[in-house]
Amino acid sequence: MIAGIIGATGYAGAELLRLLNGHSKITGFNLSSVSFEGEKMEDIYPNFLGRVNAVLQKAEDVIASSDVVFSALPHGVGEKYAAACIERKIHYIDLSADFRFGDDEDVFNDWYGKKYDFPNLHKDSVYGLPELNRQKIKEQAAKGAVVIGNPGCYPTGALLGVYAALSKELVCDYDMPIIVNSASGTSGGGREPARSFHYSECADSTAPYKIASHRHSPEIARYMAAMTPAGVKAPKVIFTPHLVPMNRGILSTIYIPLSEKWRVTPKEIKEKTLEIRQLYSDFYKDEPFVRVLPDGITAATNRVRQSNYCDISVHVDINGSTLIVATAIDNMVKGAAGQAVQNMNILFGFDETDGLKAIPMIF
Amino acid sequence: MIAGIIGATGYAGAELLRLLNGHSKITGFNLSSVSFEGEKMEDIYPNFLGRVNAVLQKAEDVIASSDVVFSALPHGVGEKYAAACIERKIHYIDLSADFRFGDDEDVFNDWYGKKYDFPNLHKDSVYGLPELNRQKIKEQAAKGAVVIGNPGCYPTGALLGVYAALSKELVCDYDMPIIVNSASGTSGGGREPARSFHYSECADSTAPYKIASHRHSPEIARYMAAMTPAGVKAPKVIFTPHLVPMNRGILSTIYIPLSEKWRVTPKEIKEKTLEIRQLYSDFYKDEPFVRVLPDGITAATNRVRQSNYCDISVHVDINGSTLIVATAIDNMVKGAAGQAVQNMNILFGFDETDGLKAIPMIF
Amino acid sequence: MIAGIIGATGYAGAELLRLLNGHSKITGFNLSSVSFEGEKMEDIYPNFLGRVNAVLQKAEDVIASSDVVFSALPHGVGEKYAAACIERKIHYIDLSADFRFGDDEDVFNDWYGKKYDFPNLHKDSVYGLPELNRQKIKEQAAKGAVVIGNPGCYPTGALLGVYAALSKELVCDYDMPIIVNSASGTSGGGREPARSFHYSECADSTAPYKIASHRHSPEIARYMAAMTPAGVKAPKVIFTPHLVPMNRGILSTIYIPLSEKWRVTPKEIKEKTLEIRQLYSDFYKDEPFVRVLPDGITAATNRVRQSNYCDISVHVDINGSTLIVATAIDNMVKGAAGQAVQNMNILFGFDETDGLKAIPMIF
Amino acid sequence: MIAGIIGATGYAGAELLRLLNGHSKITGFNLSSVSFEGEKMEDIYPNFLGRVNAVLQKAEDVIASSDVVFSALPHGVGEKYAAACIERKIHYIDLSADFRFGDDEDVFNDWYGKKYDFPNLHKDSVYGLPELNRQKIKEQAAKGAVVIGNPGCYPTGALLGVYAALSKELVCDYDMPIIVNSASGTSGGGREPARSFHYSECADSTAPYKIASHRHSPEIARYMAAMTPAGVKAPKVIFTPHLVPMNRGILSTIYIPLSEKWRVTPKEIKEKTLEIRQLYSDFYKDEPFVRVLPDGITAATNRVRQSNYCDISVHVDINGSTLIVATAIDNMVKGAAGQAVQNMNILFGFDETDGLKAIPMIF
Repeated sequence: MIAGIIGATGYAGAELLRLLNGHSKITGFNLSSVSFEGEKMEDIYPNFLGRVNAVLQKAEDVIASSDVVFSALPHGVGEKYAAACIERKIHYIDLSADFRFGDDEDVFNDWYGKKYDFPNLHKDSVYGLPELNRQKIKEQAAKGAVVIGNPGCYPTGALLGVYAALSKELVCDYDMPIIVNSASGTSGGGREPARSFHYSECADSTAPYKIASHRHSPEIARYMAAMTPAGVKAPKVIFTPHLVPMNRGILSTIYIPLSEKWRVTPKEIKEKTLEIRQLYSDFYKDEPFVRVLPDGITAATNRVRQSNYCDISVHVDINGSTLIVATAIDNMVKGAAGQAVQNMNILFGFDETDGLKAIPMIF
Repeated sequence: MIAGIIGATGYAGAELLRLLNGHSKITGFNLSSVSFEGEKMEDIYPNFLGRVNAVLQKAEDVIASSDVVFSALPHGVGEKYAAACIERKIHYIDLSADFRFGDDEDVFNDWYGKKYDFPNLHKDSVYGLPELNRQKIKEQAAKGAVVIGNPGCYPTGALLGVYAALSKELVCDYDMPIIVNSASGTSGGGREPARSFHYSECADSTAPYKIASHRHSPEIARYMAAMTPAGVKAPKVIFTPHLVPMNRGILSTIYIPLSEKWRVTPKEIKEKTLEIRQLYSDFYKDEPFVRVLPDGITAATNRVRQSNYCDISVHVDINGSTLIVATAIDNMVKGAAGQAVQNMNILFGFDETDGLKAIPMIF
Repeated sequence: MIAGIIGATGYAGAELLRLLNGHSKITGFNLSSVSFEGEKMEDIYPNFLGRVNAVLQKAEDVIASSDVVFSALPHGVGEKYAAACIERKIHYIDLSADFRFGDDEDVFNDWYGKKYDFPNLHKDSVYGLPELNRQKIKEQAAKGAVVIGNPGCYPTGALLGVYAALSKELVCDYDMPIIVNSASGTSGGGREPARSFHYSECADSTAPYKIASHRHSPEIARYMAAMTPAGVKAPKVIFTPHLVPMNRGILSTIYIPLSEKWRVTPKEIKEKTLEIRQLYSDFYKDEPFVRVLPDGITAATNRVRQSNYCDISVHVDINGSTLIVATAIDNMVKGAAGQAVQNMNILFGFDETDGLKAIPMIF
Repeated sequence: MIAGIIGATGYAGAELLRLLNGHSKITGFNLSSVSFEGEKMEDIYPNFLGRVNAVLQKAEDVIASSDVVFSALPHGVGEKYAAACIERKIHYIDLSADFRFGDDEDVFNDWYGKKYDFPNLHKDSVYGLPELNRQKIKEQAAKGAVVIGNPGCYPTGALLGVYAALSKELVCDYDMPIIVNSASGTSGGGREPARSFHYSECADSTAPYKIASHRHSPEIARYMAAMTPAGVKAPKVIFTPHLVPMNRGILSTIYIPLSEKWRVTPKEIKEKTLEIRQLYSDFYKDEPFVRVLPDGITAATNRVRQSNYCDISVHVDINGSTLIVATAIDNMVKGAAGQAVQNMNILFGFDETDGLKAIPMIF
């Protein structure tokens, strides 16, 4: 099977190429790039020397000769390629934000400053968080070519941290927001040099950014609502991203106000923590890429590095009123390219872990 | 004036020596170390070569021949030295946790596993957060020798972030906790090699630690209560520390639920943010080491590196219900040795910035 | 096939486990550890959670039930296990220095302070640098169980950088030494916490260490001599290691004085550089893990990260008298565990790249 | 005294401002910037908030109202400002390469692609390496306004490492080059974002760059020749820079072939090393910023961080034929802004350490 990657020279595109190289069903690649058309991928990324031999083409040519297309383009420019793929009856897995908001064009427009060019495509697209939408992806694939909106990196770690709690109604329905405090490595900022990611300005430092204004806020809110049982009020969300000096990884520390029923006195905390951890373990027990960590182990980004895992550790605060969940993902893998491959595996009925079996490197 | 440093070979002790070297009133040093008694400080820390020429002595000898004593010992071993200093009528500035809890021996015992050996010393000791207790420090110094409990690194950044909000009653008195989510550099872990701070295990990674169990939790809660106006219920606090791969710095992101009066609709957020920022600026306007950052600039640890500043940026969440305050300090300076020097300056009536004039290095 | 790893809880052992997990012929593992006997590997290294389920055994038990044994023990303690494996007629691949000096017991004793316990084993052992000794490894394997002395990390990068030059007699036979100036990441220092590898003491800094006294010096000298054609004087070697703040990788910058015949005037440098690069390319053309980089690309450790490649770039100095060769390896892969797997593949006649197909991650 | 800084918004300019803020004789600043004219310095660099209150002016205006001018402009654009300063009879200290080659216009033109606009200025300019040219700087200052060519960062560390050896004729006069293998932090690359200094592409990696083509090669060669006693052949030099993931610092490992007289047998190495170290110590004994390290301590960049020191450690290779000297400087201080301040102090007859008393931070 031939995989096409549109926008192959960005970090997500290159990471896709690296992962798909180890996939048992992929036998070849077509790569496109606007900036580097006609050049060789291994000249842009010498780490591929001797392993990839690919001239960067036009997106249209990639689509015309591939069996599945991944798009790693910037936001707002890919809808026409999605349309072309559906026309050709091949799946289109979009790593940008373009297909993450379904038919809610207003929210997309508010946050990304763009109207939908092909509104119909959005209605049938699926938000590609397998743990939430695996069944839906399969159902759509049974009907024909599918457009997948691959989740954002921060939303992936945030949503997997709260899904069990929301489903099992652990969450307070008061007016208290769920707080998602996240720290990301620099690769999330992409390949283009910028002051914020200039080594001398971000090494050996930590800072929040885009407080109360990051585009992943509405995405997190939308799918937390989708995870909330019918008839229950969807939670408010506060999301604060930080930049930390590391190449890969997102660590999200999530504060979930517990519902009356789950609040405890300080003495019961230890016991209740074990109970909630068990609830999380049970909830994710069939998920190949979610690891609910045992007692005594806390989520850390270096334990998931270069893997498709989302590690989750579960804690109860000292006051007994707040569930603290820490999640760790590799932003380039489960937060981008790996999750895209996982979606492809589901779409085609492949083993869901094909191409994604790498064991995390702790260093 | 001769400064004594007990426990000089730990990181805080060495940092004190570095800072005091640039102080206009300090003309000499006496240093002690249990582990390295009889050795030379510059053999332990070659960065001092050519600048310091000091043999490490016994603590008793340091006390006997100094005009002020700083203690950078581990928790739980320094009370007798404090007693000796008071006996000699010289100020004792303790960087450990031993004198941070005043007469609340029970809390200290709960968290540090030790009873007070000299309960009287604690009654008259002052928690050395100058922005909170400057007046009290001066008053005690007017009476005689003082024991200062120098604040913990995390509490310093946390408390300065909330003091204005608590004083001005911006904070909700509901059952919603203030959440302090902090990230620290590795120097906070001290000089002794340990797995957690082994380069290969903490570089290029981020993780929370001691969730719901860090000893700085009760210290933060205690002084948030002290900052709350009389008659107002003290807030609950949730504190979560994280380790990030940087040498110095603590970034605290603090979520403060706004009181009914201060909550706003999304449209008013921008205006209200400016109003609260002005309130913070006014509150700290005479503080030499607190910088409330202007609109558009967010607190970052590399803008306070090696300085005694606490930078504060003020934001209102997207929902209008939560004040988000980010504070940045250098954990070794404002979070430890610098604040100790500031306390010495206040005790002796020196210029409060003497020895602390270094401009932050962004890299 | 069952692989045994003795000393599995050190970094090299854990890396072996990670790599062998992706090997098509390995169906199971036996792991030993002296320090953690009876514990589970995934409790020591939580990155293996859900992927490895192994209780750490005694070395003897590992040997008794494995089809091949890797030893990642400290230097000087493994000879008896090698003897036990040969007795059981299974290959023994030793990642320590114990079998790197063949029958030259004196040099080993001078540098490692230990005599051989089983001198006979050393005579038949092979130094496992496949590019030098592939044929010899195959020949020994044809005769029976083999002991492989897996090369040191620094020697691997140094030797592959000079092999072509020595073989093709580019090197001056004067009294001028070949200089190997190397920089290593911290993982080379192993898992045990130590001041040198304490984050606060090695981050954001660079320094040489063990100048003129590192144990890899005699290993490099020995095999440079082995690479020198018969009748030609073996070169002298100066080797200086440095520690740089990175997790993985060794970059070696090698200065080779050119023989009279190859020296050039400044004007001819560009042309001669291309000629020497071609000579290197030709020399290594059948090697699966050596990449001679094209004009304009310089060796960098992040282009080989987590792969088994040794990247080589070739340059001629401004004076035309010295060949400068830069080599980059991942010290844990080609410099340790990956090369051990490569040796296993050769011993068993497997595809030499099995288990080693990972494409380098640039970040 | 008012200091002017032309090109104040680059890293060297900002570092100058930081250092001069602590200088006892400087009472005010004039700053210029082409890119940010009319903006405030503290808006470009928020670390100066509350400490500097300066609007960026035109270079001409800075010159007109300052008592000394530092130029931190890019190469090739500053000669006219030097001329203007000499006209105004004020000293001009140039941190670019424009005045590093004296009357050797050809070499400057070969490497920097520019002819001299004011050839006369170059004849009277002084290369501002105080350890080499202190006397000359004083003599020129006695005559009137002086143009100082502040040394390059790499040349500073390289030249101080060889000066004693060249002066005392330790160096072989054969055809063997002195090899300078250097590693620099990222701040040497300046403030403008570029792929090479993009965090994700340079963190956790090491690589050489501009092998045999770096512009500091001719500068090093020129002043090594100047350091060589009359009648002795100047050494050839090979210089290879590397980029390592750290903010500040240059570590140079220098290989000096020893002259016949100084070569030793392996047994004499220890003794001879001490002798050469003593020779270095004696040579630099009156230098306030050169520290020849005692036996057992090796140069490391974190022991000079943010200080004006050049640390030097002296070693003899295992073969007894090569002197290995390691030097460490902070590239932004002794390698740029600090050395410029030192030059100002010499020009004006101030205490040479004024503004430069900071003790190195090891982290």
